[in-house]
Amino acid sequence: MDEAVDEELGEESRLWSWRRRMEVPLFAASVAFLGCYAVRVLAEGLPEGWRDALLAVTYASWALFLVDYLVQWRLSGQGPGYVRRHPLDALVVLLPLLRPLRIMRIYESVRHRHAHARLSLYARVIAYAGMSAVLLGFAGALTVYAEERGAPGATIRTFGDSVWWACSTLTTVGYGDVAPVTPKGRVVATVMMAGGLALLGAVTGSFSSWLIQSFTLEEDRRPPGSSPGAF
Amino acid sequence: MDEAVDEELGEESRLWSWRRRMEVPLFAASVAFLGCYAVRVLAEGLPEGWRDALLAVTYASWALFLVDYLVQWRLSGQGPGYVRRHPLDALVVLLPLLRPLRIMRIYESVRHRHAHARLSLYARVIAYAGMSAVLLGFAGALTVYAEERGAPGATIRTFGDSVWWACSTLTTVGYGDVAPVTPKGRVVATVMMAGGLALLGAVTGSFSSWLIQSFTLEEDRRPPGSSPGAF
Amino acid sequence: MDEAVDEELGEESRLWSWRRRMEVPLFAASVAFLGCYAVRVLAEGLPEGWRDALLAVTYASWALFLVDYLVQWRLSGQGPGYVRRHPLDALVVLLPLLRPLRIMRIYESVRHRHAHARLSLYARVIAYAGMSAVLLGFAGALTVYAEERGAPGATIRTFGDSVWWACSTLTTVGYGDVAPVTPKGRVVATVMMAGGLALLGAVTGSFSSWLIQSFTLEEDRRPPGSSPGAF
Amino acid sequence: MDEAVDEELGEESRLWSWRRRMEVPLFAASVAFLGCYAVRVLAEGLPEGWRDALLAVTYASWALFLVDYLVQWRLSGQGPGYVRRHPLDALVVLLPLLRPLRIMRIYESVRHRHAHARLSLYARVIAYAGMSAVLLGFAGALTVYAEERGAPGATIRTFGDSVWWACSTLTTVGYGDVAPVTPKGRVVATVMMAGGLALLGAVTGSFSSWLIQSFTLEEDRRPPGSSPGAF
Repeated sequence: MDEAVDEELGEESRLWSWRRRMEVPLFAASVAFLGCYAVRVLAEGLPEGWRDALLAVTYASWALFLVDYLVQWRLSGQGPGYVRRHPLDALVVLLPLLRPLRIMRIYESVRHRHAHARLSLYARVIAYAGMSAVLLGFAGALTVYAEERGAPGATIRTFGDSVWWACSTLTTVGYGDVAPVTPKGRVVATVMMAGGLALLGAVTGSFSSWLIQSFTLEEDRRPPGSSPGAF
Repeated sequence: MDEAVDEELGEESRLWSWRRRMEVPLFAASVAFLGCYAVRVLAEGLPEGWRDALLAVTYASWALFLVDYLVQWRLSGQGPGYVRRHPLDALVVLLPLLRPLRIMRIYESVRHRHAHARLSLYARVIAYAGMSAVLLGFAGALTVYAEERGAPGATIRTFGDSVWWACSTLTTVGYGDVAPVTPKGRVVATVMMAGGLALLGAVTGSFSSWLIQSFTLEEDRRPPGSSPGAF
Repeated sequence: MDEAVDEELGEESRLWSWRRRMEVPLFAASVAFLGCYAVRVLAEGLPEGWRDALLAVTYASWALFLVDYLVQWRLSGQGPGYVRRHPLDALVVLLPLLRPLRIMRIYESVRHRHAHARLSLYARVIAYAGMSAVLLGFAGALTVYAEERGAPGATIRTFGDSVWWACSTLTTVGYGDVAPVTPKGRVVATVMMAGGLALLGAVTGSFSSWLIQSFTLEEDRRPPGSSPGAF
Repeated sequence: MDEAVDEELGEESRLWSWRRRMEVPLFAASVAFLGCYAVRVLAEGLPEGWRDALLAVTYASWALFLVDYLVQWRLSGQGPGYVRRHPLDALVVLLPLLRPLRIMRIYESVRHRHAHARLSLYARVIAYAGMSAVLLGFAGALTVYAEERGAPGATIRTFGDSVWWACSTLTTVGYGDVAPVTPKGRVVATVMMAGGLALLGAVTGSFSSWLIQSFTLEEDRRPPGSSPGAF
């Protein structure tokens, strides 16, 4: 993830200190970004002034992420190689809808600070990938709904349809009773399919590994004559 | 699964003894829960008195699980941390339809008591996850059928349609020839999709691992000139 | 697979010798079974006498598999425990459509006898599971076609439709443009979905492992300055 | 992949030298092959002369790959066993649409020559399998579009429909709102489904492994009090 960490120790501490300071503002920005976008799409009867204000907040949040990325780049002292080595960070800046994934980062950091018991490895992967899938699905449902609701011949007519479509897409079930018909809606759908496949594949794989691990551990720990502790 | 086990030995033995004593009652309760719910949904011409009796049995079974959970919490001596550490148990109490999964626990325990040969690790994961998926599918098909049968424009009109829909959903095939149209039906469907994806992913993964293991073992064990034992 | 192998050496050699002698007859029987079934379903204009002859051959092949299973049971000297320990063999006897999977056994055996280089572990799992999936799909397409072709409102009207449906089902794509509508057809479809999910999961998993292994090996073997050997 | 490498060192160096020299011509040929095919399918109003020229280039590229295969076979000094031991190379010759996968080979080689940092193992598997899936999907969308656009009752009517169908097929979502109806289109679709399942299974599996690895590494590397580096 961070090859720079091993290279320059002085830069590193300033980079880490920047990251720590930016956590709360970026968390607020990501919530504002998704929230304003959602309100703008869903509250159709909103007066024009409010809509403009929401748009302004959305763009401001976006700008904050861009600034954060540029500062991190500068502090890393890596020059042009930084972009290639941190593809995920760049992706987050380009695709603003992925931003809220940073919420997981905060969650993890808060748990850490409060010295809570860490989740097991598989549980953390499931939590990260699962929450990412939920956020991806919510953002995708919003965007597709915004594209489709006015389209002629559209099968996605309410936000409920859109959420239902997002669920059946992310799980690769794909009933097809509702599906996007506009080019823009289909592009968003394709990004969601690819992302959902990867994220839910990670959830499924980790769940499977965790289940096998649980069954293996249980074998050793069981008092004689008793039943297994897992459900 | 049970961190408490390693912490307090005195509490532990009382907890284990409670669990052993509750096995048969909870097994009966889980069968009663699912059975009464199924009869109530499927036997439409039942007189009102019978329907009320079935409902009463369903709630009584639910209450028994709640009592069991509270007693286990108390005996564990862990305070508020217990809920966070035993998420599956809490989930079972909240989502009564998952209860019958406890049947697996009994089955395993009976096999153990009779000193039968244990199944291999992968076979057990496949059996647990596969039976969980079947129960989830059956309960989901019941609930969706109860929601959909009266809805205008519904494609799920008989219980057979609902079972067919559940099969195509759990395997993520998702033909879409029948699919829920009511909001409640779609929420149940989403839970089923997520659960089915995880459970059948575990089945698939374990089957795959077991197959590779079988092929590896066969290599070493084969008498010269003979064909493999597996088909 | 064969716990008996480790237990009784005298019985074992007779069991292996029986298996070796039965290879060619069982291969012929499995081909006859599937071939006669296919001709019976697809050649609709066949005179009654021919149809009866095909049915007789089908049942005779089935009987041969049953005899083989009983003899193996007897020779194993294991009593009632045999059925439980060899679930796959029993499944093959109960579900005659799975019989042709024995073709893989012959193929492997022939390769072995001719001292050909063995396939790698992953390649063998892919070959076994992939061929099983193809046979399952072919047999399933035949059976579903036989059930659906006369049904009112059926979308599967030609054998081509049925094969197309089988392909989209086994890969869990599930377009739903053609799908079974009769109860019997749907039961067969459910068996195919479950089997296809497990078998193609094994193919996918092995392919993935093989790919990762190939990339790992390539790293070490590459002469300086040259490109990778894989495509 | 290349058992010959370990067998004959003299042949080997000539084989490697041939491969190195053929890299640029084969790259150009693969681009020409796919490009000309795409233009021929998509530019419907093209004059006949241009169409013939495009076809000629397509066949010439194909011929170059065939020549390359035969020369490699000859240089390997392995006789008839070569075909069996290099199934992927033969597949590429038979199925010309898979040719562009060689682009990955060049890309890897160029990166190597420029002494860039190598991607991690999982990243490389994801890149290879992902790009293969994209190329397979693009070529499949072209071929299916060419077959379907004139067919009566076709749901794939524009190239956009075809690309949308290819995306929903490769991810196994399979909405079924658009699907091939001609026999040829369905054969191409089946090849795409099988290939997509295997390739995206490899992408998903590697992504999952990479995610678990990232979480494991992060554990050890984190400075006290700081948040994780990955988002």
